[in-house]
Amino acid sequence: MTIPHDVLQSEIDKRIANTRALMAERGYDALIVYGNNKLSGSLRYLTDYFPDRAGWISLTGTETAIVDGAGAFINASDPPVLLVDPGLMPTREICVSEIMAGEGFAAKKGDGLSVQNLEKLITDTGSVKRIGIETFDKFPAPLYAGIIEKFSDIEIVRSTIVEELRMVKSDFDLEMFRKAGRIADLGHETIINLLKEKGVGVTELEIIRSAEHAMRTANPIYEDSCSSSPSLICTGHPVAGALLHLPNPAKSVHRGDIVHWDICMRFEGYPIDNARTRCMGPVAEKHQRAYEAVLEIQRAVIEAAKPGILANKLVNLAEQMAIDRGFKLWDRFLGHGLGWDIHERPDMGIEELPLKENMVLAIEPRLAVDNIYLFGNEDMVHVTKDGGVSFTSYPKEPLEI
Amino acid sequence: MTIPHDVLQSEIDKRIANTRALMAERGYDALIVYGNNKLSGSLRYLTDYFPDRAGWISLTGTETAIVDGAGAFINASDPPVLLVDPGLMPTREICVSEIMAGEGFAAKKGDGLSVQNLEKLITDTGSVKRIGIETFDKFPAPLYAGIIEKFSDIEIVRSTIVEELRMVKSDFDLEMFRKAGRIADLGHETIINLLKEKGVGVTELEIIRSAEHAMRTANPIYEDSCSSSPSLICTGHPVAGALLHLPNPAKSVHRGDIVHWDICMRFEGYPIDNARTRCMGPVAEKHQRAYEAVLEIQRAVIEAAKPGILANKLVNLAEQMAIDRGFKLWDRFLGHGLGWDIHERPDMGIEELPLKENMVLAIEPRLAVDNIYLFGNEDMVHVTKDGGVSFTSYPKEPLEI
Repeated sequence: MTIPHDVLQSEIDKRIANTRALMAERGYDALIVYGNNKLSGSLRYLTDYFPDRAGWISLTGTETAIVDGAGAFINASDPPVLLVDPGLMPTREICVSEIMAGEGFAAKKGDGLSVQNLEKLITDTGSVKRIGIETFDKFPAPLYAGIIEKFSDIEIVRSTIVEELRMVKSDFDLEMFRKAGRIADLGHETIINLLKEKGVGVTELEIIRSAEHAMRTANPIYEDSCSSSPSLICTGHPVAGALLHLPNPAKSVHRGDIVHWDICMRFEGYPIDNARTRCMGPVAEKHQRAYEAVLEIQRAVIEAAKPGILANKLVNLAEQMAIDRGFKLWDRFLGHGLGWDIHERPDMGIEELPLKENMVLAIEPRLAVDNIYLFGNEDMVHVTKDGGVSFTSYPKEPLEI
Repeated sequence: MTIPHDVLQSEIDKRIANTRALMAERGYDALIVYGNNKLSGSLRYLTDYFPDRAGWISLTGTETAIVDGAGAFINASDPPVLLVDPGLMPTREICVSEIMAGEGFAAKKGDGLSVQNLEKLITDTGSVKRIGIETFDKFPAPLYAGIIEKFSDIEIVRSTIVEELRMVKSDFDLEMFRKAGRIADLGHETIINLLKEKGVGVTELEIIRSAEHAMRTANPIYEDSCSSSPSLICTGHPVAGALLHLPNPAKSVHRGDIVHWDICMRFEGYPIDNARTRCMGPVAEKHQRAYEAVLEIQRAVIEAAKPGILANKLVNLAEQMAIDRGFKLWDRFLGHGLGWDIHERPDMGIEELPLKENMVLAIEPRLAVDNIYLFGNEDMVHVTKDGGVSFTSYPKEPLEI
């Protein structure tokens, strides 16, 4: 842990205060913030805890449980409580004073994130009429059914308080994103060097592995067990019908190929998500035009990323610019909010949501040419009053290697 | 993908036939096999598909969904159907003929793994009285509530058919485990070389990263996005109260330290989970005794791992042997079944479950000395008629480096 514990604790105290203010506004007497082994953004935001393993565990001689989740229970005034699936053991110094967990792997039924413990917390809170559940889409059915059965008089609703709060980043967050951006630059540099040195013949897997190794080595903490999203690539032509695909170890780069990569990693829990494009060898005129169009579109979208603009207007802008230049925006996709789950709200620009100052967006316009070649770049962008500011600055030109 | 597609398809056909036989036996007219981004073992076992990303996605202008799961729907006779959360895109050639998914990221509500699609499949199946849900502990509450509401006359129960079938491995699986075992050996070799070359001063993070880099590089396919369990380590003394902990970048090895590592990785989807112990410098007499005790215990447990013995008897054996030698088994923990979720059934040896031929177990006895030093080794072990056979063979001695 390179972030001082007290700094993180003070950040989390502010996040909890903001959460409580919104709970009061929406009439929640309690909030359960759920996170599983892979989708732990909201949970981590409020506790710094993320489940780092998953699996089956024996609870008794005949009963097993599936382990991968945890929840934070928050009411108006008591200290937040972290409930952790049996078998999960918090081994980092986290920002929660009270933890309900089993002892080591040999946890028992009722330990940790259980109906029994949630029941106790709800009862202890006193008069509870309405409970919000965050990350409700993935809340486990047995827990839900258990609470419903015990508390038929309590209204249990899907909450989006935390996912909304997470969209606006603090000064602390932004500083971490700046550092994450520099690691992304290092990833690109590693790939470009590999392409220049080994050139034609290098495989998609080698390309991605080279960048990930460099980014991991530059990351002072260990979070590989909770990697965010897979890095994707497209060299020359589609795999299994998908332009942007998992790196294929059997697919190597040929002369004239368009090489487009999208690298993902974590830095101290903050996401890295970045893409660049190069061409191996002489660039066709149509390809050069497509690439120039995508550069113009990205510049315009970043410039337009100011508070107040609706996220979906950015897609409209990108789409119109692509059409004006004789192309089409690939899959009407433009990007997404960046945060602890990498793909956060506002996602894709489809949302009719006004941008706010200090949001962070991954802006990644792409044009597909002949349904084979993919041209695009992705920057991590800070939404400011004066428009977007990229956290990543690795050169986008020249296209040709 | 280095496993030929037809080989994997033929494996999966057999697994589905076995699943259907058990469905008939337990009276399930349909089975929903759920898997999320991290716990996809049962789903992958029957489809070769695993969700490789997770996050938030906009479904409409005002509605978002949280994406990380997929499900297989199996009835008695129709081809199995894979339902995939909107936003997830199968980009590998998988072993399922029918896939219900959205088109690209811009999927709509009702696409993929939705109440609407499950309703259609249930209705199309005809007379359905009883449905089993696999990986039920983590089945999403909104899906569950939706099905219950639509089909109040259908009994919906937690199924363990697939988790049971997965415990016994085929010849194909065992061959893959043999290869995975050799990658584990390579991981140990890399660490031992690092300790010999750099010795005192190397950090816990460097130790783990060195092994993982070597194992990743030897793995011909890209699965880092779905890593299994974090690699853990214990050098000298506990971190945050935990003996076995995430590698700490600020903690380096000192003279006389006991260095114990537990490395996890995937090989073509099959798990690697292995541990070894070394001592940096002169070994204390008590430490030598503890290590010899743990070697004896592991040999005895592996020898006893034959069909018919109850898993919990193995723990009793290990515990008694530890006591006889003046030590205690750490946390009554001995190991777990190994499979597509790494920690599978039979977990920990607490289960009163008779072992079967061709199960694969991670057998990892550990002794803690003075609550500081952790001595132990972990082997991946094939249960045969004549006792266990290790897939990993990296030397366990000498203790001293």
